[in-house]
Amino acid sequence: MTRRYNFCAGPAALPEAVLARAQDELLDYQGRGLSVMEMSHRSNEFVAIAEQTEADLRQLLGIPSNYKVLFLQGGASLQFAMLPMNLLGHGGSGNFIQTGIWGKKALTEAKRLGFRHHVAASSEASGHTKVPAQDALQISTDAAYLHYTSNETIGGLEFDYVPQAQRSDGADVPLVCDMSSNILSGPLDVSQFGVIYAGAQKNIGPAGLTLVVVRDDLLGSAPPTIPSLFDYQQLAEAGSMVNTPPTYAWYLAGLVFQWLKDDIGGLEAMDAINRRKAQKLYAAIDASELYSNPIALANRSRMNVPFVLDDARLDNAFLKEADEAGLLNLKGHRSVGGMRASLYNAVPEEAVDALIAFMADFEQRRG
Amino acid sequence: MTRRYNFCAGPAALPEAVLARAQDELLDYQGRGLSVMEMSHRSNEFVAIAEQTEADLRQLLGIPSNYKVLFLQGGASLQFAMLPMNLLGHGGSGNFIQTGIWGKKALTEAKRLGFRHHVAASSEASGHTKVPAQDALQISTDAAYLHYTSNETIGGLEFDYVPQAQRSDGADVPLVCDMSSNILSGPLDVSQFGVIYAGAQKNIGPAGLTLVVVRDDLLGSAPPTIPSLFDYQQLAEAGSMVNTPPTYAWYLAGLVFQWLKDDIGGLEAMDAINRRKAQKLYAAIDASELYSNPIALANRSRMNVPFVLDDARLDNAFLKEADEAGLLNLKGHRSVGGMRASLYNAVPEEAVDALIAFMADFEQRRG
Repeated sequence: MTRRYNFCAGPAALPEAVLARAQDELLDYQGRGLSVMEMSHRSNEFVAIAEQTEADLRQLLGIPSNYKVLFLQGGASLQFAMLPMNLLGHGGSGNFIQTGIWGKKALTEAKRLGFRHHVAASSEASGHTKVPAQDALQISTDAAYLHYTSNETIGGLEFDYVPQAQRSDGADVPLVCDMSSNILSGPLDVSQFGVIYAGAQKNIGPAGLTLVVVRDDLLGSAPPTIPSLFDYQQLAEAGSMVNTPPTYAWYLAGLVFQWLKDDIGGLEAMDAINRRKAQKLYAAIDASELYSNPIALANRSRMNVPFVLDDARLDNAFLKEADEAGLLNLKGHRSVGGMRASLYNAVPEEAVDALIAFMADFEQRRG
Repeated sequence: MTRRYNFCAGPAALPEAVLARAQDELLDYQGRGLSVMEMSHRSNEFVAIAEQTEADLRQLLGIPSNYKVLFLQGGASLQFAMLPMNLLGHGGSGNFIQTGIWGKKALTEAKRLGFRHHVAASSEASGHTKVPAQDALQISTDAAYLHYTSNETIGGLEFDYVPQAQRSDGADVPLVCDMSSNILSGPLDVSQFGVIYAGAQKNIGPAGLTLVVVRDDLLGSAPPTIPSLFDYQQLAEAGSMVNTPPTYAWYLAGLVFQWLKDDIGGLEAMDAINRRKAQKLYAAIDASELYSNPIALANRSRMNVPFVLDDARLDNAFLKEADEAGLLNLKGHRSVGGMRASLYNAVPEEAVDALIAFMADFEQRRG
């Protein structure tokens, strides 16, 4: 077996220690004679796994007791529908900060479903290279929540602050954040948010699991006419088991949380590693003649580093040689082209060092 | 490692050969240096897995070319909402045959969402012990589809025929079937159905994956105001990749399909094994003084065998001793009590033999 360095934007690299433990336990979980995949979600064994997973996440993120944690299906994209259906059932509009493709999808889905919506700010004029400033936000008078995407996976644009939202009457507007691609990359003050959600397949676990953290006061206002699996309140009351949850993905998320706690030492330590990884890759890009990244310095994503070669005819050679050098999945998203190196938690610093060395070598030979 | 016999109703036993292969490939899929969990769903490697999985399923079930195969999330319970939202968008009513808890959930969700609905037949008067006969079905004049549950997992009631549905004007009504707990247990004539769907966690793979097989003429009639992840047409056009699918569960389903083809020899061979397993367990129950099953002979489920002890005070001792004998998860569903042995494809005949031997021994000692 030879593990390679995997810079995939998602489904993304998982910690090797997590995969090794999953492998070890795959046919026989702790001597019980069956796989976690084969357990009833209501069995004592699985309920213990589920509860430990939630407890570890609560500890890592410091989630206050007035928040519920849900382990759901459908990805962030299903949340694009569930959020307005839960939060706009009694009127009001969703306010959206637009900083790229994912934020636009969230807005488009609310529109599709017929909900009132308002663009509170957009970075479109800058080509989504700079996050709008706090004082540029225009919150509508009927705002029921403010939604933003803390890290745009495709554009490589990350918020360097947590927006504050108040209506003109002074009322606080709950903040809703899609953190799919940067959750758990560093510490977070959950109390600033109404809802945090994230698809698992970047920093949490395998695809097919979605994390939702929702403040208690936002539960219970969904109209009774939405699909029963969409109602946060019902999901919370059932411990995310209105129906059978994705048990194996939930278990793997638990292994990732344990790895973050025990192997990494928590989110501050993770943050320091992530900053170092991103800093050195951006420094290498900035110092080169061949590679470039267009994002404003303060908003460069620590998780997704898109870059282009100044001669796009070299792209295929770059990707082919990188792959041969054991550096996988560096191709940029099909909608933007170029390259993208995703540096999620599970991508080790050695991978970034190897990428930087390869990039320098490639530039010397081909640039 | 000691594997035990697992009679769980779901998430259920998986073939040991499948788990062993998954274990072997967990950190390094075919020398690519990464896990299937870590692959982009749009990578060549994963697309090949996805396509092979669909091809194998099409071959196993003989799925005609005018049907689409979807690999989704949310379980059968999300289909309870998606079905009427896709098929009743232009009016008409959902007709439902009621044979137990799961069929009732499907009806209740259509009601909740405000769709017209009609009970075409019910086995409630018999305590859900006998499937309604074909000539008892009353199809409404506005029927847009007829829905039934081919096997009620909790009640242990299985259809012994495929219903035919015609409106009084002679028009054929598409048949929609929840096959969560008996799909792939034997051969099937897919051309009799408009939509077949199934949660994976019984005969397909791990929880978190849902299979939908839908006839082409039923696509494209969903109103544009339903969640974009609910529209069968969009999902079909995107090859089930409107957003990131549950890739690892999809891969495991593929391993199960390969096992059915190569190790078992196809669905006729599987059918013969399943019939033998069920027949011998029911024969043992019928021959005993202690155990009983209330279901009409023709409708006894081959997949889920509920039974009660004639003295319920023995239940705990039965479960405890069974567990100690390596026979796991025999407790009946919390809504009905008693016992239930689920005999899905992955439960080997030796497991049934061991259960029967234990039951006889227990009866002799404690009955």
